[in-house]
Amino acid sequence: MNTWLRLLSSLDGAVFSSPEELARLELSRALPEDSFALVPDPALGDGWRLSRSEGGWILRGGGTGLLYGAYSVILRRLADGELPEEEASSPRYSLRMINCWDNMDGTVERGYSGRSLFFEGGRCAWEPARMRELGRLLASVGLNVLCINNVNVHEPAQQLLEDSLPELARLADVFRPFGVRLMVSVDFSRPLHAGLPTADPLDPEVRAWWRGTAEKVYAAVPDLAGFLVKADSENRPGPYAYGRTHAEGANMLAEALAPFGGVLVWRAFVYNCHQDWRDTGTDRPKAAFEHYMPLDGQFAENVILQVKHGPFDFQVREPLSPLLLAMRQTAMAMELQLAQEYTGHQIDLYTMIPMWKELFEELPPNRITALAAVSNLGRDVCITGHPLAAVNLYTFGRLAWDPAVDAAGAVRDWVRLTWALPEAQEDVLTSLLLSSRRTYEKYTAPLGIGWMVNPHDHYGPNPSGYEYDQWGTYHKADRNAVGIDRTHAGTGYLDQYPEALRRKYGDPASCADLYLLFYHRLPYTWRMRDGRTLIQRIYDDHFEGYEETKALVESLKKLDFPAPDRELILSRAEMQLTDAREWCDIINTFFHRLSGIPDERGRTIYP
Amino acid sequence: MNTWLRLLSSLDGAVFSSPEELARLELSRALPEDSFALVPDPALGDGWRLSRSEGGWILRGGGTGLLYGAYSVILRRLADGELPEEEASSPRYSLRMINCWDNMDGTVERGYSGRSLFFEGGRCAWEPARMRELGRLLASVGLNVLCINNVNVHEPAQQLLEDSLPELARLADVFRPFGVRLMVSVDFSRPLHAGLPTADPLDPEVRAWWRGTAEKVYAAVPDLAGFLVKADSENRPGPYAYGRTHAEGANMLAEALAPFGGVLVWRAFVYNCHQDWRDTGTDRPKAAFEHYMPLDGQFAENVILQVKHGPFDFQVREPLSPLLLAMRQTAMAMELQLAQEYTGHQIDLYTMIPMWKELFEELPPNRITALAAVSNLGRDVCITGHPLAAVNLYTFGRLAWDPAVDAAGAVRDWVRLTWALPEAQEDVLTSLLLSSRRTYEKYTAPLGIGWMVNPHDHYGPNPSGYEYDQWGTYHKADRNAVGIDRTHAGTGYLDQYPEALRRKYGDPASCADLYLLFYHRLPYTWRMRDGRTLIQRIYDDHFEGYEETKALVESLKKLDFPAPDRELILSRAEMQLTDAREWCDIINTFFHRLSGIPDERGRTIYP
Repeated sequence: MNTWLRLLSSLDGAVFSSPEELARLELSRALPEDSFALVPDPALGDGWRLSRSEGGWILRGGGTGLLYGAYSVILRRLADGELPEEEASSPRYSLRMINCWDNMDGTVERGYSGRSLFFEGGRCAWEPARMRELGRLLASVGLNVLCINNVNVHEPAQQLLEDSLPELARLADVFRPFGVRLMVSVDFSRPLHAGLPTADPLDPEVRAWWRGTAEKVYAAVPDLAGFLVKADSENRPGPYAYGRTHAEGANMLAEALAPFGGVLVWRAFVYNCHQDWRDTGTDRPKAAFEHYMPLDGQFAENVILQVKHGPFDFQVREPLSPLLLAMRQTAMAMELQLAQEYTGHQIDLYTMIPMWKELFEELPPNRITALAAVSNLGRDVCITGHPLAAVNLYTFGRLAWDPAVDAAGAVRDWVRLTWALPEAQEDVLTSLLLSSRRTYEKYTAPLGIGWMVNPHDHYGPNPSGYEYDQWGTYHKADRNAVGIDRTHAGTGYLDQYPEALRRKYGDPASCADLYLLFYHRLPYTWRMRDGRTLIQRIYDDHFEGYEETKALVESLKKLDFPAPDRELILSRAEMQLTDAREWCDIINTFFHRLSGIPDERGRTIYP
Repeated sequence: MNTWLRLLSSLDGAVFSSPEELARLELSRALPEDSFALVPDPALGDGWRLSRSEGGWILRGGGTGLLYGAYSVILRRLADGELPEEEASSPRYSLRMINCWDNMDGTVERGYSGRSLFFEGGRCAWEPARMRELGRLLASVGLNVLCINNVNVHEPAQQLLEDSLPELARLADVFRPFGVRLMVSVDFSRPLHAGLPTADPLDPEVRAWWRGTAEKVYAAVPDLAGFLVKADSENRPGPYAYGRTHAEGANMLAEALAPFGGVLVWRAFVYNCHQDWRDTGTDRPKAAFEHYMPLDGQFAENVILQVKHGPFDFQVREPLSPLLLAMRQTAMAMELQLAQEYTGHQIDLYTMIPMWKELFEELPPNRITALAAVSNLGRDVCITGHPLAAVNLYTFGRLAWDPAVDAAGAVRDWVRLTWALPEAQEDVLTSLLLSSRRTYEKYTAPLGIGWMVNPHDHYGPNPSGYEYDQWGTYHKADRNAVGIDRTHAGTGYLDQYPEALRRKYGDPASCADLYLLFYHRLPYTWRMRDGRTLIQRIYDDHFEGYEETKALVESLKKLDFPAPDRELILSRAEMQLTDAREWCDIINTFFHRLSGIPDERGRTIYP
């Protein structure tokens, strides 16, 4: 679990009960030669200000601000050796959240780092020392909310608000000095389980039941961040069963939380997951906009609508969700996913910050009020499964603090903090990490089309795996053409965007290549702007993706990772190479069988 | 569990300890008005002879012969009211076997009738009364061997020969009066588990270990039929690990069983289940022949090589396995599958005897010495899941007794014994059952091509589900053509057959339509003998298959099945209709996307 904090000494046996105390402790232990005067300034909140003083530095901040400042100073000092004369920093978003999809049976939905850190066998099963390490990791990059259980609330997870509430309180106590507040995913239909005849959000008894539940929970965990809800999505219960809107559902829960300062985070991941593949009138990416835009302005003040960054579900390339651009009167969080569900299961190398930066280029600065990411953490020796996947947790923290963060700089900071590699190797590794997403994209589903993974487990290629299924994710490749026309002339998805984006993507002749098959249905003979045909571009990308992976593996072998990271990294690299070859060959064969068009460069495409 | 024995009174409380006693009991209870003199004649063995005498009949037979004669007489009398003046019957095969794929955790591999009848929670968990009903069902159609555990021997199934041996003995006691002997699937590598350093079949210690095991087992179950082994198949252990042949492996076990009269049944289902889809030099249906033909003549006398009826794995249409024709110096069993693994999971209606009869048309009468079928039984209210699936168990018994049995007659007997339907409805149902396989075949994978099912669970369509996988089951459909050329010019599979069959199937111009895509790769524009193109034939079959299913459902609704059978049958019929529509539309869309050729008759093919 050391990763970027490897240079800090263990917290075992350390005593501290507040972020401020922890800040002092960390500074004195990590930088004993330096002198820091810590000056609490509650007005600064999470923010901090560093200034040079005679013989040392003065660090001002709110309680958590002092802690974030301390970690920033420590990590800077350890990585660069330098500290600025003056610096002030405060986070862009007040809620910087990790969503764990951990089940109480110990499994982790879409988890690739082993079993749950929190649960086992239907019970809370966390180790205080490990939780402190986790709290420190989160705090060290400014993350301040941890939702510990799966949004798909399976029994007995609701016990966290009931019989297991004392355990939740103890866990909150562990995280509190790290400035990390807990959040809990709740089951919208829980009142039924409690014996009520309905879970209708407008029913007075239901409202009273949730108010009572909130009271009990906040009596045990006074600083709980709030509740997270997945409703009417993928067969979860929700307000639709009672003919109520999602605003009515969310507001009812928000009302219960309001007296305690809690927020209600409501996920906007709602679509028809029982679509008939024959139905071409429904286009899944339109769903969130259609469900939520009519409700803009109707949500209570302490509701946050959590919207996935793209309109589908964490594919390697999706445009920014139109909902994030359109909703002006609703507080929103953007949801990212550190767990590599569709992006290689923490086997294939996949550094996300270049993708995130692209999203923020499209997203006006104050459109969202919070940032959330699905966890990539687990109980494995390497807490992120793949040692190099820790870069995604680290850079997510940096991004949530400041979306203007420099991607290359943040990755490089992580590399330097994590290993003592020679500087030339740091350059190589930084560059490999930064290019890893493009490499993965090249050998998998082409040009924004998505969903060519194996169904259910989502690792490895299966070009028609979702083609006749109920999930609304079709490419309809035939002998002549591939893709879905999502322009005004097609499904109309593009109409959900502002005019500028409609223009940007609406014409296949000017649409960026990498989004081409997201928006358009095109013949294989379509001429790209660089003169290549579409089919040739698909072949080229796939051969290049595989070649780049071969080179990646060779490069990784030359880096001086220490044990056991080296073995973990290299064994996963070999698995990635196998995966890349399967992807490359299967996608090329799939399109060659359909199109009959050979590779212009005569490379092997299997029959 | 009544099915075709519904007219017999319950065995509850009945006392009998041998087949002969049971025969007397059954006759006296079922036909109290008739007088039967039972004359034991050990020389007749399983056979029996009925003759008219003054005031009654004389039934002669070995112990089991009397029992089989009794059931034959009873069922004939109950169904037809008539008995012949003279009749003699003896079974074609001395071993008529049911193979249960039941695991000791209570699951049944490829089971569609609920949980195991024998096991639960890692233990034997059978109910004597239910076992007696099962024994009676088997005996009533002449089945005499029951292998109770899965050929994939998962822990703790080997305990049947060890700690659970007393339970096995008690179970054998229950089945003995029914003339049913038990068989046990064993794990070839078991000596390793017992602490031996090897499971090498030529190792003296290993041989001694198996001899000792057989001694212990036969001390407890003196009439055990023998062992069943799946070795070196789908990741099961086997002699190949020690550089030994399968003859050496089988003979070693046979030697241990020989002193006790046991047989060693060795499955010939061996192929490369880790094939690279890119490898076109390997053709899975060739595998069994390649593995076993070189061993012909090397097997011990009490070894039976159990060969699946087709060279693949229980597809809706496969030619007869060439091994069954070629091996002349080896005792062989043909393996059928009552469990509808690839043929509708006991949801879709699928009566097998028309298919079996086709197999026996190709198979010389004395080429095999035994017949086996994978069980379709389980703990559901309806023991075969679908009430109409019981016809497959019944007719399998009839077939194993006499492969010359008339298919229509046997099905009609089953219908009449199972329900008291008006005669016109018996005709309708018999006809629906007899045509059900062709209907299923029409709407699923076309013309012998196989393997367009969903991977793993094997229900429902997935035209490319196995296309890039490791199982050696590819159709390689592209925009021009579909199928694998298995002639001499292709993979050479056809060369494994005798000359007459090579001629029969080798030329696509004369090859029977229904085997066309098993043997040949052909363009969609290929002209069939009836003038239709191949693609049109595919479309026609699929539309017809769906239309026939609609008609089937309507016909079933009109039949006067009693409760609860009626509800079970009609609810499954609705599921079959949904399945047939998915198959029809998906297969047509799949081939239309590839070929671009419209349906000549303008029916809807979805884009």
